[in-house]
Amino acid sequence: MTQAWWENDCLAINEKVKTQAEERQGMLTKPPGSLGRLEDVAITLASLYGDEKPEIKQPLITIFAGDHGVVAQGVSAFPQAVTVEMIRNFVKGGAAISVLAQVNDAELKVVNCGTAFEVDFADDYEALIDKQVGPGTADLSLESAMSAEQLTQALSIGQQVVEQGKKDGIDLFIAGEMGIGNTTPAAALGCAYTGQSAAVMTGRGTGIDDAGLTHKIMVIEKALARLQLTELSAEQILKELGGFEIAAIVGAYIRCAQLGIPALVDGFITTAAALAACKMNPQVHDWLLFSHQSDEPGHQFMLEALEAKPLLHLGLRLGEGSGAATALPLLRQACALHNGMATFAEAAISSASEETAS
Amino acid sequence: MTQAWWENDCLAINEKVKTQAEERQGMLTKPPGSLGRLEDVAITLASLYGDEKPEIKQPLITIFAGDHGVVAQGVSAFPQAVTVEMIRNFVKGGAAISVLAQVNDAELKVVNCGTAFEVDFADDYEALIDKQVGPGTADLSLESAMSAEQLTQALSIGQQVVEQGKKDGIDLFIAGEMGIGNTTPAAALGCAYTGQSAAVMTGRGTGIDDAGLTHKIMVIEKALARLQLTELSAEQILKELGGFEIAAIVGAYIRCAQLGIPALVDGFITTAAALAACKMNPQVHDWLLFSHQSDEPGHQFMLEALEAKPLLHLGLRLGEGSGAATALPLLRQACALHNGMATFAEAAISSASEETAS
Repeated sequence: MTQAWWENDCLAINEKVKTQAEERQGMLTKPPGSLGRLEDVAITLASLYGDEKPEIKQPLITIFAGDHGVVAQGVSAFPQAVTVEMIRNFVKGGAAISVLAQVNDAELKVVNCGTAFEVDFADDYEALIDKQVGPGTADLSLESAMSAEQLTQALSIGQQVVEQGKKDGIDLFIAGEMGIGNTTPAAALGCAYTGQSAAVMTGRGTGIDDAGLTHKIMVIEKALARLQLTELSAEQILKELGGFEIAAIVGAYIRCAQLGIPALVDGFITTAAALAACKMNPQVHDWLLFSHQSDEPGHQFMLEALEAKPLLHLGLRLGEGSGAATALPLLRQACALHNGMATFAEAAISSASEETAS
Repeated sequence: MTQAWWENDCLAINEKVKTQAEERQGMLTKPPGSLGRLEDVAITLASLYGDEKPEIKQPLITIFAGDHGVVAQGVSAFPQAVTVEMIRNFVKGGAAISVLAQVNDAELKVVNCGTAFEVDFADDYEALIDKQVGPGTADLSLESAMSAEQLTQALSIGQQVVEQGKKDGIDLFIAGEMGIGNTTPAAALGCAYTGQSAAVMTGRGTGIDDAGLTHKIMVIEKALARLQLTELSAEQILKELGGFEIAAIVGAYIRCAQLGIPALVDGFITTAAALAACKMNPQVHDWLLFSHQSDEPGHQFMLEALEAKPLLHLGLRLGEGSGAATALPLLRQACALHNGMATFAEAAISSASEETAS
């Protein structure tokens, strides 16, 4: 059996440049370590770009949208039509991520991976890409969310988006997602990959009430109960419990790591995709940066499983890539500080523990 | 006795616009509350500006620099000459805050409130303002840090900077500070205003070792022991334990609140100034936004005393206004989202709990 594309090696980070960047941070006119996480970000980006003075010039935000058969179980506060309605809002510029893309000078694309309702405005917007795998997934509480062929097709959507991005010269990738009900597959994947219970991993998504939350947990438990998780590969788990948009993001993250493009992970759904990507290809991990911790309670357990410490804790729980886009200025400021600050020598500043100064 | 200028009323926030902004947040195309703290920031800025669609167009960052007699006790890892050396680095563009001001399109001014070493380059830089109260404060562990006249003079520095800013049209004020040894007066003020012990409030500043930390705590305890704190007013405490640059920031925060300019508070030193400002004039509190929680351990106790929940936790401990400047894009993104997102009606998006959609 030939190796699948997603199992191919990822690029190695540049350890030499990492060391150079660490040394540079020690020479800048500040007490050592006093820029905290901003120092780490600059060093990480330097090591990923292989450039001692890293810059983010051309970030791409891509929203992957898809519908979910499991919404038939009543797991979401919003009707399924909203998936397509929000796709239109993204490309028309009215959504949170549309605004954030604009203010951060990032390109925004929207990929339809498979919606239950018709998209009758696709020709009107260049940023909207039609890659529908099907009219939403099957109900994961009752059967496999998708077939093996659909999984391969969904993974390749992300692969292709990132390959086009590479040709276009992007240097940072942000995946967003839209899909009414998609906290349910994300929580189910989180349980399957981390071993946490549905009670711990499940939250209110867009805003279900207490009874809805209890029901949602039961739906996820039912999905998990129909599987022998220990006998399934990471790919099989994704096929059983995932979504078209989630699998597309998995493919995107893996391809980013293979092509040397850092990916800034957003919230609950995309972190489930990041978990899947790292399970399917552990080398992906080096290329993932984590932007924010969502208010969705299960997110922290996924982040812990990935040993990820996100930059922001702002109580966000919107998805769409909005948390990652919000963190983009932090990455750019980290780079600007790293590249633009004077060294002690350049500025003729006295060092610590010297008796006196010139 | 006539009332001092800092006791005069501050502007009231606009409750009507606050309600309008809250209502607008509820109409934007996102689940209610899903933008977390970014929603709060937009609503707060709307209520402060009295503008349902707030924007930050002209932020001013002003670094107040001053020296401290208490460095004679050996409380800092860096020599006192660094205060003046860093003033030069600020105006030459090599410091962290210089870089952050540039990338955030903010004006940067530096005010010399009184340094021990000579500034022989003042005429070369328009951004550098000479307002020296004296060649540093007296040693607060042995005597009053400054005289009553010096306190009044230092407070008026901040008052004047903000009044000039108001004339120039600034709409956000960030105070930074520079002064070798100034975590010592800041910690002493923190103890005096919150009732916390020196052991809890004192940290390593720019990087002293364990023995240095123990000594620094003793120095602060000595300072506190020479005072009958319960008999002192907030102004008297500032005079006894403050610094020229800290008092200038106190004056600046109070004047901001009187003139209706929101102030984005930075880290440990500026939060000590914020505490003093709120003790001297409680109405100031409404006009303060809190940017980040410093790695300096006492900061959280000061923030708790102010009921402040800062936006960022990035392990920063540099001062200079760097944490506040780093948070500036969050404020701007919060405004952009609030102003630029479509409403459910505008975007024709189905609401939660509807059965179906158009």
